[in-house]
Amino acid sequence: MLSKAEIQRLRSLRDKKHREALGLFVIEGEKVVNELLAARHPFEEIYGTASWHGRRTREVSGEEMSRISSFPTPSTVLAVGRLQTHPLEPRALGSGLTLALDGVQDPGNVGTLIRIADWYGLSRVLLSPDCADLHSQKVINASMGSFARMKIHSVDLVAALAEAGVPVLGCDLEGDPVHALEAGEAAVIVIGSEGRGISQAVRARVTRFVTIPRYGQAESLNAAVAAAVVCDNLRRRGRG
Amino acid sequence: MLSKAEIQRLRSLRDKKHREALGLFVIEGEKVVNELLAARHPFEEIYGTASWHGRRTREVSGEEMSRISSFPTPSTVLAVGRLQTHPLEPRALGSGLTLALDGVQDPGNVGTLIRIADWYGLSRVLLSPDCADLHSQKVINASMGSFARMKIHSVDLVAALAEAGVPVLGCDLEGDPVHALEAGEAAVIVIGSEGRGISQAVRARVTRFVTIPRYGQAESLNAAVAAAVVCDNLRRRGRG
Repeated sequence: MLSKAEIQRLRSLRDKKHREALGLFVIEGEKVVNELLAARHPFEEIYGTASWHGRRTREVSGEEMSRISSFPTPSTVLAVGRLQTHPLEPRALGSGLTLALDGVQDPGNVGTLIRIADWYGLSRVLLSPDCADLHSQKVINASMGSFARMKIHSVDLVAALAEAGVPVLGCDLEGDPVHALEAGEAAVIVIGSEGRGISQAVRARVTRFVTIPRYGQAESLNAAVAAAVVCDNLRRRGRG
Repeated sequence: MLSKAEIQRLRSLRDKKHREALGLFVIEGEKVVNELLAARHPFEEIYGTASWHGRRTREVSGEEMSRISSFPTPSTVLAVGRLQTHPLEPRALGSGLTLALDGVQDPGNVGTLIRIADWYGLSRVLLSPDCADLHSQKVINASMGSFARMKIHSVDLVAALAEAGVPVLGCDLEGDPVHALEAGEAAVIVIGSEGRGISQAVRARVTRFVTIPRYGQAESLNAAVAAAVVCDNLRRRGRG
């Protein structure tokens, strides 16, 4: 039996401010919990009904699950993880490729961008404070398990980029064509917000603007698509 | 004043079967209607309230708009267009690049893929019958105006590909690395469904499977991201 206090605590984790106060987050659904378990995410608690066949720290009834779940149709599992706050080590950006998200608001975009960083073997992802909340269900869902595999840091992006010591590439509609980009060993790829692009303060830290050549008439590409094309070009030339 | 019959006709266009019976579709919202007008989409009817400052064929009151709108908070404009059924000319696939979508279910993905085809200057998009409905609000929204600029054909994909006469490139997790792909003048790029990839019947028409090299650990890339990376590689080599 879950106590009333336990149910309230679990329900409170839907809100960012309670997540931050308790240092915990919650995630629901068989698919996403299985993805995170496969990536060895160290959950604190896993509440599963009798129909859940994965790892479980506590069995709950269907009725209890419907009380702790935020889903209209509850799944068989709800897991609680610890908020990960990795401080960014000094000079960390000096090695490998970094994806830096500057105010990316859409949770699906943030999750997809983390997945792309994982596909292309980037070393880390930086999130500015005004990005969608990393520990929300939608971000973690969209990351398809990459949330658990990538090093992700929430940082003051302007300060972090000021000390990068490596090329800071800003993806923009105007810039050097990404097809001709010479790729070094280390760089930061900056992706701006869906509506307004890279913020003024971050633009001041960009050392080179890059653009994806356009052959037709669409006005833009979405943030995740643009990031993937830039990563693909950097990796291709790095190995070429 | 809109008559009861007019209101019912407009509301009925939310359903695919009524769209097909009447040969019309409906689209709402200032942003998307402006995008389509900018791309010179020949709307049949444009219903706007007094607050709508764009082209309008009929002024309606706020109360009437709320009766014809499917939005919880209606916008100031609702437009009606004619369903576009372009038959695919024989040997059409022999020129230019074609994007073929095989069972792409998510409307946002279909719209984003049309936008990518437009960015990369592809000649046309083919949709299999089991793709998300082209004339739905979500598809047209996600296309960001490219719906009105691209030639889009709903076709029997297996039959169309059988007569392609050009390389049919199937995007898959196994195949030749896209970085090394030699690009001819004409080709078809096939993108499969989100869940199951390219269907068996369409696979039989693929002349070459291509894959995007992976440098990390994510299991896959989403359909739109994969399509963009393949288009970028084909265009880069075509111009190189």
